[in-house]
This record gives sequence, C-alpha cells and structure tokens, in this order.
Amino acid sequence: MTKEPAITDRLEPRWNDQGLIPAIAQDAVSGEVLMLAWMNAEALAETLRQGRAVYWSRSRSTLWRKGDTSGNSQELVDVLLDCDGDTLLLRVNQKGGGACHTGRRTCFFYAPTEDGWTVVEED
Amino acid sequence: MTKEPAITDRLEPRWNDQGLIPAIAQDAVSGEVLMLAWMNAEALAETLRQGRAVYWSRSRSTLWRKGDTSGNSQELVDVLLDCDGDTLLLRVNQKGGGACHTGRRTCFFYAPTEDGWTVVEED
Repeated sequence: MTKEPAITDRLEPRWNDQGLIPAIAQDAVSGEVLMLAWMNAEALAETLRQGRAVYWSRSRSTLWRKGDTSGNSQELVDVLLDCDGDTLLLRVNQKGGGACHTGRRTCFFYAPTEDGWTVVEED
Repeated sequence: MTKEPAITDRLEPRWNDQGLIPAIAQDAVSGEVLMLAWMNAEALAETLRQGRAVYWSRSRSTLWRKGDTSGNSQELVDVLLDCDGDTLLLRVNQKGGGACHTGRRTCFFYAPTEDGWTVVEED
C-alpha cells in the first residue's frame, strides 16, 4: 500500500485563469446531478450569503441568480470544496420544474450511440 | 409560462480552448458525487472503448487511466452529455478505497466556516 497523502486542514478555492471555478449542483433529496455552472468569487459569496445558487454566466458576463427569470431557483443545502480546491459541489433543493432551461429536471440527457449523442427520454 | 426551448435530437461534445471538457464522476450505486476531472477527445474515446474512466491529466499532460497506480479504478456504467454539450456526467462503479487520492471515498470534503474551508469528517 502506498501511503496516503496528508490532508491539509484548510483550503481556499483555486480560481482558474478567468477567475472562475466549476460548481456542480446536485439535488439534495434525490442525489441526481442537475447541472454544472461556474462561479467567480462574488457569485460564491452571494450563494453563501443568500442561501441560493448564484452563478457567473460566461455567455452574458454577469452574475446569474438562478431562477430569477425561470422560477427554477436552487435553495442551498450545503456546499463542499474538493481536495485540490478547484471544484465546488452544491447540494440544493431544486425549485420549479427542474434545473434545465429545456424544462427537464437535469441538464444531463444525451447518451452516446453509433449515431452520435442522442436524447434519452426522461424517467 | 415561457415556452421551453426545443431540444436538438443530436449533440456533440463542445471542447474548450484547451480541447477539454469537464467530467463529473458519480457513484452509480450511492449517487455520491466523487470527483471532477477533465477529458480530451482521446480520453473520452478510451473511456467508452475500455468501459472505465480515462481522464486527461492537466498537471502531467497525459492520459490518466484512473486506478492504474492507485487501484481505485472506475468501471463505467453510463455517461451523459449535458444540454449545451459542455459537461459530461459519468456514472461509475468505484473500485478500491475510494475516488480520492487522499484515500477518501469522495474528493469533496471541505466546508465553508468562519475560519475558511475546513475538513468535514467522513461518515
């Protein structure tokens, strides 16, 4: 057995070159992985302060308080940072119809086939 | 209610400027989110061909057949691409002691406190 590396007691988020970190949103009840979005320092601070998911929209270059337009907001249950500080995991109570802008519960619904990635029917 | 956007029948992965896409690994049995890593086109092709997670190591700039060194390989159950084609979700059977190089089941174990992000004890 190789010796396990020591775990540092404290860690800070490691922002990428664009000042962003990926944030995975998981349904706190079902465990379903809902989406991945990005946060800058302000988005993370607002998420913690407001107790709801606030992302950074890379396409619109603005804070994105998820659900303000769609109603599909995400109430924060908890958030964890990973071992090397470069990814966040949010556990959320998903409001509205689902996390996805298509109206689905989750954003993950294309499976690989011989004809490319095709839509999987929702349960 | 706003009209939901149409879903395209087929989609292809959208690689970032470095030719990479983030891949979330989730335990197929427990639903626990284990880690996030990155894949290039070759890593994804090898993952699908071998039926086990093969990532791209950004620090070593090489394919990373997870578990070859640690024994903590990930047998692929299925993989899904998200609605805008820029994130993968792998459901895996985690082998060995866990996904994390620290010996933990999951890589996500730092929680925010007034003293910074600190280690959460494992269940």
